[in-house]
This record gives sequence, structure tokens and C-alpha cells, in this order.
Amino acid sequence: MPDGVRLPASRELALSLGVNRTTVAAAYELLEKEGLLSAHVGRGTFVHAPSAASTGAISFSSSRPADELFPVEAINEILQRSTRNPDLLRSLLQLGSTLGYEPLREYISTTFDGEFTQSSASGVLISSGCQQALDLLARAFVQPGDLVMVEEPVYPGLREVFHRAGARLIGLPVGEIGLDIESLELALRRERPRLILVTPDFQNPTGATLPLQSRIDLIALAQQHNVALAEVAIYRGLRYHGDDLPSLRSLDESRSVIHIGSFSKIAFPGLRVGWVCATREHIERLTEAKQWSDLHTDHLSQYILHEFARSGGLAEHRRQMLETGRQRLSATLSALETIPEIAHFTRPQGGMSLWVTLRQGLDAERVLDATGGRVSFLPGSAFAVSRRYPSSFRLSFAGLRPAAIRKGIEIIGEAARRAAASTPERYTSPHMAIV
Amino acid sequence: MPDGVRLPASRELALSLGVNRTTVAAAYELLEKEGLLSAHVGRGTFVHAPSAASTGAISFSSSRPADELFPVEAINEILQRSTRNPDLLRSLLQLGSTLGYEPLREYISTTFDGEFTQSSASGVLISSGCQQALDLLARAFVQPGDLVMVEEPVYPGLREVFHRAGARLIGLPVGEIGLDIESLELALRRERPRLILVTPDFQNPTGATLPLQSRIDLIALAQQHNVALAEVAIYRGLRYHGDDLPSLRSLDESRSVIHIGSFSKIAFPGLRVGWVCATREHIERLTEAKQWSDLHTDHLSQYILHEFARSGGLAEHRRQMLETGRQRLSATLSALETIPEIAHFTRPQGGMSLWVTLRQGLDAERVLDATGGRVSFLPGSAFAVSRRYPSSFRLSFAGLRPAAIRKGIEIIGEAARRAAASTPERYTSPHMAIV
Repeated sequence: MPDGVRLPASRELALSLGVNRTTVAAAYELLEKEGLLSAHVGRGTFVHAPSAASTGAISFSSSRPADELFPVEAINEILQRSTRNPDLLRSLLQLGSTLGYEPLREYISTTFDGEFTQSSASGVLISSGCQQALDLLARAFVQPGDLVMVEEPVYPGLREVFHRAGARLIGLPVGEIGLDIESLELALRRERPRLILVTPDFQNPTGATLPLQSRIDLIALAQQHNVALAEVAIYRGLRYHGDDLPSLRSLDESRSVIHIGSFSKIAFPGLRVGWVCATREHIERLTEAKQWSDLHTDHLSQYILHEFARSGGLAEHRRQMLETGRQRLSATLSALETIPEIAHFTRPQGGMSLWVTLRQGLDAERVLDATGGRVSFLPGSAFAVSRRYPSSFRLSFAGLRPAAIRKGIEIIGEAARRAAASTPERYTSPHMAIV
Repeated sequence: MPDGVRLPASRELALSLGVNRTTVAAAYELLEKEGLLSAHVGRGTFVHAPSAASTGAISFSSSRPADELFPVEAINEILQRSTRNPDLLRSLLQLGSTLGYEPLREYISTTFDGEFTQSSASGVLISSGCQQALDLLARAFVQPGDLVMVEEPVYPGLREVFHRAGARLIGLPVGEIGLDIESLELALRRERPRLILVTPDFQNPTGATLPLQSRIDLIALAQQHNVALAEVAIYRGLRYHGDDLPSLRSLDESRSVIHIGSFSKIAFPGLRVGWVCATREHIERLTEAKQWSDLHTDHLSQYILHEFARSGGLAEHRRQMLETGRQRLSATLSALETIPEIAHFTRPQGGMSLWVTLRQGLDAERVLDATGGRVSFLPGSAFAVSRRYPSSFRLSFAGLRPAAIRKGIEIIGEAARRAAASTPERYTSPHMAIV
């Protein structure tokens, strides 16, 4: 049950379950003591979903930025500034263009993604975060029954969008060095997909990054087979080690790669601003889908993020994010080294998460259970398309301080030991070695 | 072409069209003089879509609120207040609940829609405006091929959402007193729709309001045929004359009517905040659709609108909106009386628009053309489902001052006279008398 849902009155629930009302009341009391419900006199009883804060669990579950780093001062200044210009504020409160707030679109095309300055604002559509950009892509490109090729394991929100659009998904394996190009080549010989979707930098959940030659090959394959190619570039700005690789869009001389960006990982997810850079024809189709989805993205958020980027606040914030991310990634990798029950983990150079595979036969969900709620993470099954990942899980480290990371991984280690002691070597997944 | 689209360089366009470059340059220059393009040295040439401001046209095209009434001071105060609470701001910038900002959900369920206080926050989902609420409804309830009954003429954004979801639409005629219940009854005997969608108050485009008895009959019919019933209540707060009628949701003892509200008409459309009140089961399905659409609606907008409503700013703003709306509606009705070429127009008691039908044989698009761009409005065809409305058009009056309204209708009258002089009585639509 989602957080904040109101439960039926105990009398009502007792009636519908055919049990005594005191039984229900006792159950509610128990759940309230455990912090899973909150009762308000006269208002009712509400679900209080466990979060890291309320349960004390160390959560590796969410690839969201650390909010203690949010530059509240800089945002305050922008808000203050906006209040000094009544005409501006009035225009931000009024209905606007489906394409987005013009100065932000200009900024994204000419400055922020300096790599592909040849795209002008006419090739930029503002979306309500990356999630909506994916949804618009599904709406503009995919008919029920169409084939779509995605990476596997994959971000569940990407899989769900295309699944709900009626696409048949083919999951292409992602290894330590990103999407397996050979598998793609083989798949393209057999099938003709409508779209290929790739996260070349710090893929979620593996953290893998596609090498330059694979990027070049990927673009060539997509062109050769005349398939639309889209890249999710939302973690791209979060490289802690090594050198940036060119985006697919910048490598593609025809500029036909669809590029999805967002402020959610490099800045603030709560404001819900992302974007798509694409050919004019693609932007037109996406804009039509956007129009009927929600008319346009909230104006004030777009204004704030444009001001934040333009004023240098974003660059300053990113420096801090990179410094902190580097420490957190390093703490995660060192801690994982100490757990013998872990057979393998990826070593990303940036992003927010990595992919852990337990020793053969150890079940990730069992290990999660064995932590007794002191740690949370998403087990491999959440990221599956057509394979199974029973022994794998995602660790999202970016939102946790090094001490919490070390403690959390220590708890996972203990839990894995206990689970190993009681787990027969039940099955061997042929896919465990993929990442 | 939408506003802000960048045009190809004249050399490029000349090549692709096979014409001389000076021809293209001359065309660009001409369009720039007419204010339809703007050229920026070093950046390129951009489409500058005509708006009331830039062309001097009097626009009756958009049912958006008058931004000169926006209480910029009150919003400034809220923004100032938010900057004094760093923890609050930090939480607004972070990822949040798909259901929406909890205090706003509570407010909507208990105070704002005081009519149906029995619904708790668990029965409220925040959406990115009414447009997204409609889209979520289509996603949660409609499979391709499903029947959906809507009013006709109807808001194009509603029609498009369900059309794109693959629904087969049945348009039920809307008369001066709203949806024709007899037509609904007949249609329900023949067909079993998945959903009925109605705007009981100040329907867009007709401005019609459904009488109490029709509301009661509508709910009974939906229940009898076991069809989901949804009401769009976004104009509900804008009654200039007469007494409020109860919403469908408040009349329905089973509380199964789905109720869509929004801040866009009663406050600010640029912040994109709407909501759905429904049964817990319906909210769960809608929330799942929302999750994969865009995770959640922007936090800061929700915070601002909650503060605005909670502090009394919204009530104060609505008083002004009602006063202004009353004057503008009155100016519109009086001016329309003076045009003999108009056979009929609706007389709404609130909302933002009304529906005008020209004398038999007069074509609304011809009249629009004959205004020579000095006035704009949406012709009847924009609101059609399966009928034709060649002689009708929508006049959205809420965004125009009385003087502009009078001048605009005078221009329409002249244009209609000119068009009548040159128009044979070509056709008779059996539906012209419906509204």
C-alpha cells in the first residue's frame, strides 16, 4: 500500500473480514508501534510506508541524489529574483508553449549540451522528467505489437512504459562494458525493431558505460537496419573517474539519434524537468504526444532550472556532486571487496548504482529478507525483461553517506552468510555472469 | 508551425526546394515584416506564431484566465516564505510521492471540495492539470476498441486523449441545458460503453450547465448500466450568476463518480496542477498510470497552490475572477444581441466560453477568414466528434476586456455580413439547433 493511504475504520474492516473488532484494533496498534501506520484522532488511520528515515533502514533502493547537497541558498536567490519581476511571474503562471520555456530550450541546445550545438532550440522538447520523455517516445513511435530492443537488466520504469504501450520487448544483455553489440547484431539479423533504447553512460542498474568503438558500431547498426535509436543520457553528467565519452547523438553525423536528458540526477528530481533533443520531424511527433499528455511542463520549474544553470549554480553544484559521488562510489567498492559471499560486482566510473551478483545459488531476495529490514535494495527480478536474475541486486549508493554505505554492506554480508548457511545450491543461472 | 521553431537557412531551403536563394530570402523578409518570423543574427530565423499580443488580433480562441488578474503579490509572498525554510525547500526539490504533495491532497479532500468531505486524501491523486487527469483516465480505463461516451461538441483535448487511446467515441448531443439525457438513455440501450465523461458545469465549448434532475438521472443511468462515470469540474468554481448545483460526485451516494478538478481555470494554468477524486480502487489504477507517465507532479507548484489556497489567497482571487468574469460574460452577451447574422448563442451562467451559431448557411470558417486576421476564434469543426458544426464557433471571452470583446464581436458581425452577401445557402445541418 502506498504511503498516505487511509485504512478503513477498524469496525468496518472487522465486518468485511468477519473477525472481531478488537482483533483489527490490536493489529492496527501493532502496526502503529512498528511505525507502519499513523492514527490521527478524527481523521483516521493512514499507511506510513517505511523509508530510510522512519524505519532506520539503510536504503540502497533508490537512485536519487543526496538532498543534503541541494544548494538551497542558490535556489532561494532565484526565487527571490523572480519575485522582483511581476511581468515575468505573470507569464510563468499563464499557459505556455508545449515545446517548453524558450530560454531553457535555447540554453539546452546551445550551452548545456555543448557537444551538439548544431541542434537548435527547435530540436528540443521539454518533458516532465526522463520518465515522461520515455513515455512520449513510446507514444510517438510505438504501436501495439511493435518490437522494441532495450538493455537487460534495465530500469523498470523504461520497461513498464514500453510494455504498457503494447511493445514486445527484446532485452539485449548488458555486460561490464555496456550493451553487448554482438547480441544486438544477431538480433537485428532476425528481427526488425521499431526502436533501440540504450543508456550509454552509467546504465541503470549496472552502472556500465559503453566504449567508444561500441558507440560507433551501435550507430552504424541502427542506420544500416534503418531503426530509430534513442539514448538515455540522464547519468551522463555524473562521471567520477576517467574521461567523458561522446554521446551517441554527437557521434551521429546524421543527427538522427534521439537524446534524452534530465535535471533529476544532476540537480533536483522534485521539479520534474527533462528534455529530448531530436530531429525536427521527431520533435514534432513528440510534441503532439506531449500536447495531449499534459499541455506543457510546469513553467516555474523550467524557469528555476534555467536560472540555476545559466547563473553557474548548476556547474558549482555538479562539482560538489562529483566530489561526493566519488567518495560514495569508492566506499561502496571497498566495502563490497570484504564480502566473500559476493561473486561479482560492477565497477562503474560514475552514476548512482552498481550491480551485485551473489555466489552461485544464493538468492538475493532471501538475503534481503535475512537483513531483517535493516537494509533495503532492489533485487534483480525488478530489472528483468526476459531473463532471471535471482542472485543479483542493485545497490544505489549515491544517496548514502560512506559510513551508512559501509554499515549497510556489512549487514548485507552477514545476511548473505546466514542465507548461505541455510541455502542449498539450488540453481545455476546462465545469465549470472553477464554483468 | 509552432512558435519558436527554427527555420532552415535560406540557402538550405532554396536547395531543397530547387528555387533561387533570393526568392527564399525575399519570402523570409516578407514574413518577418508581417511579424510571423523573427531573425537573429548568428542564431537563425524563428517562427513567431501569431498571438493576440503580436498581431493585434482580438483572440477569442483560448479558454484561459486573464493574466492581468493574477495576484502576483500573493504568489511573491509564498515564494518568499518558502525561502525561509531550507528543510521544506530541500524536500520539495527531492523526489516525492506519485499521489502528490500530502498537504495539498489533504486540503483538496477536506476543505477545498467541502462538498464531499467523506473522501479522504487517500481518494485524491494530484495530476499535471486536467489534461493529464483525462489522459490517466484513458490509460487506466480504456483498451483499444472500447466505447467511450462523451458530450458533443466537446473540448478537443478530451476527444484527442480518448481517440489516441484507441477508444471508439460516441458523441452525445449537448443542448442549452447540457448533455441530452434522453440521447444517453437511448445510446445505453444499444451500447455498453467503458466510460461516460461529462462536464456538468459550464461545459467547454457550449457553457451549458446540467440541471439537478438531469444530474440525478445521469448517475442513476450509469449505475443501472454499470458504467464508470467521470465529471470534469474545472469550470465549476466560475459561476457568475445563479446558485451552484451539487457536483455529480456529491450526489452519488456510492461515491463512485470520478471527479476531475484543476487550478488552471480558477487560478493559474502555468503551474499545471489538477486532481482526481475517486474510489480507492480507481485511485490505485490511476496512480499506477501516473507513476509510469511522469513519476509525480512537480512539487514546488503543488506547494505554492496549497499555500495559496490555505492562506485565503485563492478565495480572494476567485472573488475578483467572478466579478471580472461576470462583466465579460455580460459584455459578450450584449454585443452578440446586436449581430443579426447570428441565429443563436448559448447563455452560460459561468465559465469561459459560449457557443455561437450563425444564420443558416453561413460558414464559420468563412466568417473567420473574412475578419482578415483581426479576430480569432475556434470554428465548430474543432469540437466535433461525429457531427458537423459548419455554422458554429466557440467564443472564449474570459481573457478579454469588455472593450475588446465589443470590438471583436463588431468585427465578427461585419465579417458575417460580408460572408453572407457572398454565400449561397448551401447546406442545412440538422444539428445546428442543438445548442
